Amino acid sequence: MDGDTIQELTFVNSSVDEISHPALDIGGSLIKMVYFSTNREKPTDKTQNNSSKDNLLSGRLYFLKFETSKINECLDFILTKQLHCRGVQHYGFPASDQNTIKATGGGAFKFADLFKEKLGISLDKVEEMGSLVSGANFLLKSVSSEAFTFVNSQRNYVQIDHNDLYPYLLVNIGSGVSMIKVDGDGKFERVSGTSVGGGTFWGLGKLLTKCKSFDDLLEMSHQGNNRAIDMLVGDIYGGMDYLKIGLSSTAIASSFGKAVSENKELEEYKPEDVARSLLRMISNNIGQIAYLNALRFGLKKIFFGGFFIRGHAYTMDTISVAVDFWSKGEAKAMFLRHEGFLGALGAFTNYQLVEEFPCTASLTGDNSQNPLFEDLNDNGTIECCMRAIN
Amino acid sequence: MDGDTIQELTFVNSSVDEISHPALDIGGSLIKMVYFSTNREKPTDKTQNNSSKDNLLSGRLYFLKFETSKINECLDFILTKQLHCRGVQHYGFPASDQNTIKATGGGAFKFADLFKEKLGISLDKVEEMGSLVSGANFLLKSVSSEAFTFVNSQRNYVQIDHNDLYPYLLVNIGSGVSMIKVDGDGKFERVSGTSVGGGTFWGLGKLLTKCKSFDDLLEMSHQGNNRAIDMLVGDIYGGMDYLKIGLSSTAIASSFGKAVSENKELEEYKPEDVARSLLRMISNNIGQIAYLNALRFGLKKIFFGGFFIRGHAYTMDTISVAVDFWSKGEAKAMFLRHEGFLGALGAFTNYQLVEEFPCTASLTGDNSQNPLFEDLNDNGTIECCMRAIN
Repeated sequence: MDGDTIQELTFVNSSVDEISHPALDIGGSLIKMVYFSTNREKPTDKTQNNSSKDNLLSGRLYFLKFETSKINECLDFILTKQLHCRGVQHYGFPASDQNTIKATGGGAFKFADLFKEKLGISLDKVEEMGSLVSGANFLLKSVSSEAFTFVNSQRNYVQIDHNDLYPYLLVNIGSGVSMIKVDGDGKFERVSGTSVGGGTFWGLGKLLTKCKSFDDLLEMSHQGNNRAIDMLVGDIYGGMDYLKIGLSSTAIASSFGKAVSENKELEEYKPEDVARSLLRMISNNIGQIAYLNALRFGLKKIFFGGFFIRGHAYTMDTISVAVDFWSKGEAKAMFLRHEGFLGALGAFTNYQLVEEFPCTASLTGDNSQNPLFEDLNDNGTIECCMRAIN
Repeated sequence: MDGDTIQELTFVNSSVDEISHPALDIGGSLIKMVYFSTNREKPTDKTQNNSSKDNLLSGRLYFLKFETSKINECLDFILTKQLHCRGVQHYGFPASDQNTIKATGGGAFKFADLFKEKLGISLDKVEEMGSLVSGANFLLKSVSSEAFTFVNSQRNYVQIDHNDLYPYLLVNIGSGVSMIKVDGDGKFERVSGTSVGGGTFWGLGKLLTKCKSFDDLLEMSHQGNNRAIDMLVGDIYGGMDYLKIGLSSTAIASSFGKAVSENKELEEYKPEDVARSLLRMISNNIGQIAYLNALRFGLKKIFFGGFFIRGHAYTMDTISVAVDFWSKGEAKAMFLRHEGFLGALGAFTNYQLVEEFPCTASLTGDNSQNPLFEDLNDNGTIECCMRAIN
């Protein structure tokens, strides 16, 4: 389990018997988990008196991640907390949810036997692209202050018009990148993707910098300067711009191109500079391919999600600049606060009991007035209510 | 000077006083040179008797490259052979060509003072994108058996219909990549590009594998297996395809993604495997972005040039497969035999005396019958005639 996130602290504050309904997105590098926890300590005014009477439970959605290579930590977590089989039955939720966990991502197939063998749990597989789309639609329609643009290091929250949400391009940056044209609830097509994604940043970064973790690598990139190793237009043109084609002297002509002519070993470059060049190369490339696909299908809105982003300012800035550059200012990159959990949220919405969440929200058309999803609190959990379908 | 190419051998066979009119393309990593050499030993039947009478010189175009970081080797070559000021005057070519060399690429700006100082030579700068286009048009219209597709490791030469050449997308893969929409002679626009190019392959490859040269890196990639380090769809899906979105288990989900979860140091990976993953990542990415741009402008023909390709089978294969995959078989990647010398050839066509070459060829409409450009011989030189404009 990732020990440096706020989510862990949040979990520690929840008592065992209050949490339930884990949903997993088991990717190539990371396992993302969403679960529900009742909120006995601070019930909202609207729901505190009727939770058991009409099966309406007030609480929060919590978010956790594990490294896929350390899947045993995830199994231990579920086992220790008995997440899969307790905490909800007495509120009248279906018994069919016991010993079954909704799961998406390739690992839902790869690790199905492991979950069965070690925990006696069946993974109820939810299709990956569909989960990402469900998760994104859920967030965009049901959670206020979810989407934002990132310009000059400033988050500017975007008001989503529920009647004008579709179509949009969803770019999910996991180990690899999927680009999905979303036309409505359950209406989507994976139109493109690239293998140059978060796994490339982390994998290449690990080989080049000996970083200890993804966060370590991101932190290093924050300290570095890509000019140390990228070949800039000015490096080729003797410090001049190449104005005829609109490239300034500081534009990157060739990522890592300076390493060609400098007789330096890897160890002679600062790991921070290498990390920065890598992050910039990958972010810029994804922004470019995303924009070209948005253009291809006439999509005005591009939302970026996936655990690669991690709310990291420089990543979002580079993606934003790439989209702005290639679209000549016509398109804006948008980001999601729960970017890393689209698939897991999508799997979560597949539990029978929560299927009415996004629908209700979408029907009201104004989630700020929707009692089911009140707001996002500061540590990233989502306050919400759950109702069983029975 | 690159010592392992056929071009050097070719040069050695030419005597000093027979060669002239060097044209340079000074890029971020490589300097490409084209020059003309009269062909006294084997004059063609058509021209042997009239060369001095009507200023028609029979000969060949020769091709050379140097590393930009070793620019002194290029200067020494020009100085030793006195390439810039002799060999043509007695045939009636303009004296204005003396002490001036046509040059393109950023280095034509960056190194102008160096050429002046060391050799007393002025670099007559030719705009970079225009040179690439002139060079490509020259080859496509004037040299037979120049363009080919590469499918299943087979070169299939393409007959270019001169009346149906435009528009096309020219993708020049140098240190960085330029994508140019070509609508005619001198009619073009740089519509896209990417910083992930040959300099990235070479630069990152050098850091990761300690390769001695670009050719060394290419050779290594030929011996490697990208599965050792790339995360495949099957690695995520437990060996299964992800059929719903058309990805087979062997498709690359995340380039270098396997390095994330394996606790291996860089030294524990075979350099050959690393080189292969890198080549595949970059080739595939360029193929994808090129196709998206061709689609955007409705271009049916995509020609790939630039020194990155080097006639390397695996590179061409990957680019071809990428274009085929992303276009669902609608588009075909095409390559050029003189791929690395587009800019230098374009600069060469700027010498007054050769300006009639491509024009004549294009007017005849059938270069196989054009006495100015007879054929390509086996070592890559181009047999041709030069005529002064006076």
